Amino acid sequence: MVTRVGILGARGYAALELIKILLRHPDAEIVALTSRQVEQPHVTEVHPELVGRLDLGLELFDLESLVGRVDVVFSCLPHAASAEVVCQLVDAGVIVIDLSADYRLDDLDVYQKWYEVEHPDPARVGHVPYGLPELYREQIVGAPLVANPGCYPTSAVLPLAPLLSAGLISTSDIVVDSKSGVSGAGRTPRMGTLYPECNESISAYAVGAHRHTPEINQLLSAAAGSRVEVIFTPHLVPMNRGILTTIYAPLAGDASQEELLEALQAAYREEPFVQVVSELPATSHVSGTNYCHLTARRVAGRAVLVSCLDNLVKGASGAAVQNFNLLMGLHETTALVDGAVA
Amino acid sequence: MVTRVGILGARGYAALELIKILLRHPDAEIVALTSRQVEQPHVTEVHPELVGRLDLGLELFDLESLVGRVDVVFSCLPHAASAEVVCQLVDAGVIVIDLSADYRLDDLDVYQKWYEVEHPDPARVGHVPYGLPELYREQIVGAPLVANPGCYPTSAVLPLAPLLSAGLISTSDIVVDSKSGVSGAGRTPRMGTLYPECNESISAYAVGAHRHTPEINQLLSAAAGSRVEVIFTPHLVPMNRGILTTIYAPLAGDASQEELLEALQAAYREEPFVQVVSELPATSHVSGTNYCHLTARRVAGRAVLVSCLDNLVKGASGAAVQNFNLLMGLHETTALVDGAVA
Amino acid sequence: MVTRVGILGARGYAALELIKILLRHPDAEIVALTSRQVEQPHVTEVHPELVGRLDLGLELFDLESLVGRVDVVFSCLPHAASAEVVCQLVDAGVIVIDLSADYRLDDLDVYQKWYEVEHPDPARVGHVPYGLPELYREQIVGAPLVANPGCYPTSAVLPLAPLLSAGLISTSDIVVDSKSGVSGAGRTPRMGTLYPECNESISAYAVGAHRHTPEINQLLSAAAGSRVEVIFTPHLVPMNRGILTTIYAPLAGDASQEELLEALQAAYREEPFVQVVSELPATSHVSGTNYCHLTARRVAGRAVLVSCLDNLVKGASGAAVQNFNLLMGLHETTALVDGAVA
Amino acid sequence: MVTRVGILGARGYAALELIKILLRHPDAEIVALTSRQVEQPHVTEVHPELVGRLDLGLELFDLESLVGRVDVVFSCLPHAASAEVVCQLVDAGVIVIDLSADYRLDDLDVYQKWYEVEHPDPARVGHVPYGLPELYREQIVGAPLVANPGCYPTSAVLPLAPLLSAGLISTSDIVVDSKSGVSGAGRTPRMGTLYPECNESISAYAVGAHRHTPEINQLLSAAAGSRVEVIFTPHLVPMNRGILTTIYAPLAGDASQEELLEALQAAYREEPFVQVVSELPATSHVSGTNYCHLTARRVAGRAVLVSCLDNLVKGASGAAVQNFNLLMGLHETTALVDGAVA
Repeated sequence: MVTRVGILGARGYAALELIKILLRHPDAEIVALTSRQVEQPHVTEVHPELVGRLDLGLELFDLESLVGRVDVVFSCLPHAASAEVVCQLVDAGVIVIDLSADYRLDDLDVYQKWYEVEHPDPARVGHVPYGLPELYREQIVGAPLVANPGCYPTSAVLPLAPLLSAGLISTSDIVVDSKSGVSGAGRTPRMGTLYPECNESISAYAVGAHRHTPEINQLLSAAAGSRVEVIFTPHLVPMNRGILTTIYAPLAGDASQEELLEALQAAYREEPFVQVVSELPATSHVSGTNYCHLTARRVAGRAVLVSCLDNLVKGASGAAVQNFNLLMGLHETTALVDGAVA
Repeated sequence: MVTRVGILGARGYAALELIKILLRHPDAEIVALTSRQVEQPHVTEVHPELVGRLDLGLELFDLESLVGRVDVVFSCLPHAASAEVVCQLVDAGVIVIDLSADYRLDDLDVYQKWYEVEHPDPARVGHVPYGLPELYREQIVGAPLVANPGCYPTSAVLPLAPLLSAGLISTSDIVVDSKSGVSGAGRTPRMGTLYPECNESISAYAVGAHRHTPEINQLLSAAAGSRVEVIFTPHLVPMNRGILTTIYAPLAGDASQEELLEALQAAYREEPFVQVVSELPATSHVSGTNYCHLTARRVAGRAVLVSCLDNLVKGASGAAVQNFNLLMGLHETTALVDGAVA
Repeated sequence: MVTRVGILGARGYAALELIKILLRHPDAEIVALTSRQVEQPHVTEVHPELVGRLDLGLELFDLESLVGRVDVVFSCLPHAASAEVVCQLVDAGVIVIDLSADYRLDDLDVYQKWYEVEHPDPARVGHVPYGLPELYREQIVGAPLVANPGCYPTSAVLPLAPLLSAGLISTSDIVVDSKSGVSGAGRTPRMGTLYPECNESISAYAVGAHRHTPEINQLLSAAAGSRVEVIFTPHLVPMNRGILTTIYAPLAGDASQEELLEALQAAYREEPFVQVVSELPATSHVSGTNYCHLTARRVAGRAVLVSCLDNLVKGASGAAVQNFNLLMGLHETTALVDGAVA
Repeated sequence: MVTRVGILGARGYAALELIKILLRHPDAEIVALTSRQVEQPHVTEVHPELVGRLDLGLELFDLESLVGRVDVVFSCLPHAASAEVVCQLVDAGVIVIDLSADYRLDDLDVYQKWYEVEHPDPARVGHVPYGLPELYREQIVGAPLVANPGCYPTSAVLPLAPLLSAGLISTSDIVVDSKSGVSGAGRTPRMGTLYPECNESISAYAVGAHRHTPEINQLLSAAAGSRVEVIFTPHLVPMNRGILTTIYAPLAGDASQEELLEALQAAYREEPFVQVVSELPATSHVSGTNYCHLTARRVAGRAVLVSCLDNLVKGASGAAVQNFNLLMGLHETTALVDGAVA
C-alpha cells in the first residue's frame, strides 16, 4: 500500500529535492504541499522542474485538512516554525520527519542559546531519535517523529565517529573545516546569496558561531563516550550543491594511515551509503546521490579526514527518505540507489 | 530477461551518464566497457562517481570477445572510429545504438565533406533510422542499428519540425542560436576547455561551420517537405550541462502566438519527454532529465522559439536509452521518468 | 585642477566599478556618495573591495548639500528616480552623467510606454546627447547632461551602425541575440538572481519586451537614415560580467566577409576602445576593460556579427568615465587604458 | 628612464597578469616575451586580451639575444626549467625576478626532496632573498635575483608571522587549510582542470604532500625563531582566481581576539597591501588587486585566522612587480594601487 505524504515548506531547495526523490519512490505518493506565503500557486510555478511530473497546488498549512489525508509529513520549515506545527501533527498521529533543527539537540538550554528562540515543543526535546541511520538505526525504527540531521554534522560525524569510538583519535583539538555550496543558504532572497556576490568568491562565515556546532559536539560526544568540542568553520563555495569537510584530529595513539582506513571500512562495510575511498574525493563524485565518500590520511602525526556529500541529498532530503524507508519498514535504499526498485 | 549491454568509449561524459541511467534500468545489465587507451583501469578509477555502484574493468575493444557476451552495444566513440567497429558488430548480429554522427546523415557526400574523413561503412549510410523517437518512432522499432541524434539538432528540430510541417513558418531565413554547456566539448584535455578559459566567459564558435548544421537541415527539410537551410551558431556557456536554443523564424502566414503554441502542444501531447511550457524555460529546469521544455513567442511578425534540454541526457544518453527501450520492446520511458518502473 | 565628483546610488555594481575607475583617475576626486536607504554606512561596509582605498561615508541625497561640493555627478539611480534628482542638479549648474535610461530615448511617448512611468523631466527629453562617443562625440563635448548608453545597445550598435551607414546590410529582419552576465540584473535581492537559480543555467528573458529594444532601434535608425526595428532577445548567463551579442543581418548587396570586416575596421580605426578582431571573441577577452571586441562572418548570404564587452565597464561605468573625460576636456582614454596616464 | 623588461614563459596565466600590470607601469616597457614551444605566434594570438594593447611576438629563449635588450627579466617558467636559464641571465648581469620555486627554499636537500629534481644552480640556493617585501624588504633592495613567493605561502605567512614573532600563538599544531581558484593549476591542458571536472565541485589535493609546505615552514620558522611545521591542505575551488586560507593555531598564552587583531594591525599599519579587516573577508574583495585582507577570531581557546588574496596578483605577478619596484628604486606601489602614479 502506498504511503500518502505531505511536505511542509514546499518552496525551497530541500523540498524540491525531496519531491524529486519521492516521485521515483514506488511506495510513496505526494498528496499535499504547504507553503506559508499568501499566494498558493501550482507547484510547477514554483518549481518549473516538475512540469509534467507533479500536478498539485500549494496550500496553506491546516491541521484538520491534513490529518486523515496524509500518513507521513516531511517538514522543510525553518526552525521554530517547524516544531510549532510538527508537534500538532505528531499529537494527531501523523508520522513526521523534521528536516529543521528543532529536535536534533538533546538539551533544551543549548537549543535556546544557539537558536535564540523559545522552543515551541519543549517536552519532546531529548526524546526524538536523531535520524542518522548509520549511527542510530535502532532508535529510528518505529519512532513517531525523527529529527533529520544537519548537512554539516553528517559530513563531520560520519568520518569522525568510528575513529572516536575506536579510540584512535583524541577527543580534543579536533578542527572541522567545511565547504558548502550555496543551496545550503536557502531560497529566500538575500544580498549575500545573489549570484554576483557568491560567484568567483569563497569566504568563511559564522566562524565559531555556526548553529551546527553543538549538534556536531553532541554526536561526537556520544560516539566518544566523553565530552568532545570541535572548532567548526563553514565556508561558502561558488557551486550549487555539495559539502566537502576536511578534518584535522590528533591521534590518540600511533595509528597508521592503514589502520585509520581499516577502522572506517569496518564501521561502514554494511552501510549502503557510506563509501570509504582510497583516492581523495570531490563533491562532484556524490552530486545528486545519497552517498557520502570519505577517506583518511595520516599527516605529521595527525589524522586528516576528508568527506563529501550532496548537502541537499545525504545532507537533507535523501537522508529524510532513508529515514522514511526505515519508518515504513521498507528497504532502506528504496528510491535512493541504482537498480530495480526493491 | 535482462539485456546484456556493452558500452564503447566508456571514459567520456556521455558514457558516464549512460552508465548511470542504465544502472537504474530494470531490464539492462552493463557487462562490458571498452576504451581505446592503453591502460585499462577499473571503471571507478575513471569515474569515481561509480564507487560502490558498478564493479567492472575497462577493456580494449575485441570483436570476438564481445559478440556472445552482449546483446546491445552503445557506441560513445568519436565519429569514424565509431562506424569502424559498429559495422563489425552489426554484421555479427549485435544491436547497436551509435551516439556518434556516423550514421545520422543520409548523404555520404555531405558526411564526407563536413567530417573530412572517408566513411568506414558507406553502404549503410542512408539506411539507418535517425533515433529521434518523437519524429521517427516507427523506423526505429526493429532496427539493427540506430543513429542517436546530435544534441544541438534535437534542441532545434523539436520546436521547429511541427511548425514547418504545419506550414506556420517559412522554410527560409531561419536562425538557430544555440548555447551549450562545456561537457558537450568532451573529456579530452584541450586548452580551450580548461576551467579558467571557459569560466566567466561566453563565446560563439564554429560560426557557419558546425557539423550539426547539415544534420539540422536534413531533419527540417524532411519535416517541411522542401529544402530548409538554417543559419546555425553554437555558443560555449560556463556551465557543465544544458543547451538552450533560441530560434528566429519568419511566419509563413499570420499565425498568432497562441496558434504557434497550440501547434506545438498538438504535436507533443502524447510525447512523454517534450513539454510545451508557457513560461520561458531555463536549462536548469531539465538538468539531469530526459525532458525537453519548449515554448513560442510571436515578436514583430516572427516566431521566436526557445527550447532547452540536458545535452548529456535528452541530447545524448537519455535519448540512447529511449531508443534502447523502443528496440527492446520495453516501455519507452523505462529508467527515464519518475515513478515505479513500468 | 582636480574635478570633484559625486556618485548617486552608490551601493550597486555599476557604482562600485565607477568608484574603482575614478580612484585611478588623476583628474577626479570622489567627494560624495549617496544612497536612498535609511542606514548610511561607510562605503567599505557596502563595498569591502574598497578597504584602504576610499574613506567616505554614504549620505542621503540633499541638493543643497551637494551643490557647491561637487562639479560633476554620476547618477547610478534606477530610471525615473534618476531624472527626478538629475534635473535639479542640472538646473543648479552641476554637470551630470546619467547612467539610467531616463534621457536616452528621444521620444517621450516611447519612454513612457516602455518604462510605464511618467517622466519626471519631460522638457529635456530629446535634447540630451546619447553618450556613445564612437557615434556622438561632437554632441557630447560641452553638454551639461549626458545620457550614458545601455549595455545591450552598445553591444548591438557598435557592430551594426557602420554596416547600416555603409548600406551593406538590410534595415529589416535584423536579429540581435544577446547574452549577459548576472551583474546586469543589479544588486537588489530577488529570487531570480540568487546564486542557485542562475548557476548551471541559461535562460532567455523579456523576449520581445526588453526596454533596451527601443534604444537599439533609435540608434540604428539614426545610423541607417531610415526606420530600423530589430528583434532583440536577451539571455541570462551564469557569469558575473560580460555581454556577448550575436547578430544576424541580411546583406543589402553581396558584400564579402572581407568587405564587412573592412567596413568595420574603417569605422573604428581611430577609436581607442573598439577592436575589430579576426578570431571569434569571448567576453573574457574584454573583462574588466573598456574595450569592445567585434568581428563579422558571412554565412549563407547573411552577415553574422559577434561583439563582446564588459557590461559594467564599456556597458556602464567605463563609458561614463569616457564621457566624463570628453566633458572635462581630458584625453578620452584617461584612467581607461594601459600605460602612463595622459 | 624606462626599464626594459623581458618575460620568460609568456603563455601562462601569471605571465598574462604580469603583462597587464606592466602595461600600466610608467617606468617599465615590455620588450621581449619568450616561450619554449616551437610555434612563436604574436602575443595576441596566445592572449587575445592584449589586442590593441601590446604588439610583440613570442620568441624562443636565446641568452645572447636577450642580454643587452633587457634590463630585468621576470621568469614565469616552471621549476628547474627556470633556474636553468635564470642563472645564465644573472651571470650576464640581468636582474631577475623568478616566479618559480627554484630559489625560495634555503636548503638544497629540502628542494631536491620535494621537487624530485636536481637543482640546476645549487650554488645560489640559500643566497637569494625571498621576495615578500612585508617580511624581507631590506634583503630585496639591491639584490640581483629575487625569489618571488608562492601563492599559498603568502596567504599563510602574512597572518601567522606577526603572531609567531609576538609569541601569541604556539609553534606547534598549526593547521593551514587553503582554498584556491583553478588558475593556480596553470594553463597546460590536463583532464583534472577541464571545466566540467572542476565546475560544481570542490576537492582537497596533495594532502600532506604539497610543495608549498616546506616553504611555509621555512618562513614561519624564521618568524618564530624556532622550528615550525604546519599541516597544510590545499583545495581546488570552482573559481578562476583567489586563495582563501583558514588557519587554526593554539594560543601560546591567553591573548584575546582584540589582542590578536592589534598585533596584526601593528605589524601591517605601514604596509600598503595588507589590510587587517574586522569583517570576515572573501576572495572577491581582493580579486584583481595586490591586496591581502586578513582577520583573526578567537574560538575555543584557539586563534582562527582568515586571509585572502588574488593568487595571480599578490600571489604571483603583483608581488613580482612590487619586487621590481623595490629593485628599481621606485615607489613600491607603482602600478599596483589606485590613484595617480607616484
